[in-house]
Amino acid sequence: MEKLEQLYEGKAKKVFKTDNPNEFIIEYKDDATAFNGEVKGSIGGKGVINNKMTGVIFTMLEEKGIPTHFVKVLSENEQLVKAVTIFPLEVIIRNTAAGSICKRLGLEEGLKLKSPIFEFCYKNDDFGDPVINDYHAIAMKLATAEEIETIREMTFKINEILKTYFLEKGINLVDFKIEFGKTSDGQIVLADEISPDTCRFWDVKTNEKLDKDRFRRNLGHIEEAYEEMLKRVQA
Amino acid sequence: MEKLEQLYEGKAKKVFKTDNPNEFIIEYKDDATAFNGEVKGSIGGKGVINNKMTGVIFTMLEEKGIPTHFVKVLSENEQLVKAVTIFPLEVIIRNTAAGSICKRLGLEEGLKLKSPIFEFCYKNDDFGDPVINDYHAIAMKLATAEEIETIREMTFKINEILKTYFLEKGINLVDFKIEFGKTSDGQIVLADEISPDTCRFWDVKTNEKLDKDRFRRNLGHIEEAYEEMLKRVQA
Ligand SMILES: Nc1ncnc2c1ncn2[C@@H]1O[C@H](COP(=O)(O)OP(=O)(O)O)[C@@H](O)[C@H]1O
Ligand SMILES: Nc1ncnc2c1ncn2[C@@H]1O[C@H](COP(=O)(O)OP(=O)(O)O)[C@@H](O)[C@H]1O
Ligand SMILES: [Mg+2]
Ligand SMILES: [Mg+2]
Repeated sequence: MEKLEQLYEGKAKKVFKTDNPNEFIIEYKDDATAFNGEVKGSIGGKGVINNKMTGVIFTMLEEKGIPTHFVKVLSENEQLVKAVTIFPLEVIIRNTAAGSICKRLGLEEGLKLKSPIFEFCYKNDDFGDPVINDYHAIAMKLATAEEIETIREMTFKINEILKTYFLEKGINLVDFKIEFGKTSDGQIVLADEISPDTCRFWDVKTNEKLDKDRFRRNLGHIEEAYEEMLKRVQA
Repeated sequence: MEKLEQLYEGKAKKVFKTDNPNEFIIEYKDDATAFNGEVKGSIGGKGVINNKMTGVIFTMLEEKGIPTHFVKVLSENEQLVKAVTIFPLEVIIRNTAAGSICKRLGLEEGLKLKSPIFEFCYKNDDFGDPVINDYHAIAMKLATAEEIETIREMTFKINEILKTYFLEKGINLVDFKIEFGKTSDGQIVLADEISPDTCRFWDVKTNEKLDKDRFRRNLGHIEEAYEEMLKRVQA
């Protein structure tokens, strides 16, 4: 399998074609951005850590019956995935209130939600990934009503699996953002990544943040947090 | 029936207690605000027009089976209503894209939506009435899942009635914002007002705006637009 031309470069990853039209290579970068690209920086070792962590977690999710785009890890910072058409939706689950929702709605950070909040954002940097609902998504043809239902069901299942998985590793899964895509044969699969870039991980005992909020909020010990998370996932 | 102390004053109306604990008096003002109170002004005759128009429309909706808070018009700018506890939700239907949704999501103003977009905003001026979904509303205890379902069903029914009603008057009902409340005996009713302050009305033939966008966008002939709408509703 050959790595061919770059298809696109995002804020945290590059996507490359391969000689198989149904497979892409994702290259994970150390680049980090916050607040819709306003703050730019780099987190040493992040690309390698997120590549490995996503590999472990997507393999585990596949074993629990969640179809994903993941094929295999190729190198320290590259993985082979199924080529998909990404739904332009950021699919978010919040188990505890933190981050943007607190500012937007006046909730206190750390508030445990009785039941998870499911959120869609329209994945579009020009508009700052605005919160939308099913009606917006359907009207804007981001997905059909049936696709949205599939995505919602898969997301709640993923949350249940991840919550238990991380709790066993001493981590409170506060919230996460995932993306879904459609393969050439029409299957909806979990795509993109699951890492400290896309989740909020709080240590169960100390409440210490082990995720990208250390970068966003300038809390220091960023690399150590990412390393600690990889260690727990690999344990 | 006696008008007693003022309960609260909003941006467009005042609410007074009466000697009947189950009834309030709403006094309609000429005050107009835009962009979450950033722009303040006044529209001559608006209070009288909105009081009358809401009276006509709520009476019509009651006749078509929609429970509302409306009891009767008391004077040029006052009406008697059932006292309700307002759900802190701005309930919005969009038949055509216009206003905030165009800026927020990059839709073209005037785009006819294949099916109506139903939207909730959290009614809270401090946070700029942010868009939310069912999960947020339930988590924040703004309404229960059952109440939301009732509100949604009533809103779609109201949209069908209003679309037909206004079309017969040569008006394209672009979008509207309504509020719901709960009476002391637990009934969910349509409350607040339906007027050029809370709807976008476009003339079917000329596309002329006959609503508060004339004020928001400084288009002139504001009073005439409100008067024209009242004339059509009373015809
Ligand atoms: N299996 C896949 N096939 C095609 N594109 C993918 C796949 N998985 C993820 N992507 C896309 O790769 C792009 C690069 O990732 P990233 O750097 O995170 O981008 P962004 O700046 O949009 O967050 C994203 O647009 C993401 O949706
Ligand atoms: N039947 C009712 N009982 C109690 N409050 C009501 C009723 N109908 C409307 N209201 C409330 O009256 C207040 C005054 O109206 P308005 O000036 O439009 O306020 P706002 O500035 O919040 O838009 C609003 O908060 C509205 O929700
Ligand atoms: Mg990304
Ligand atoms: Mg109002």
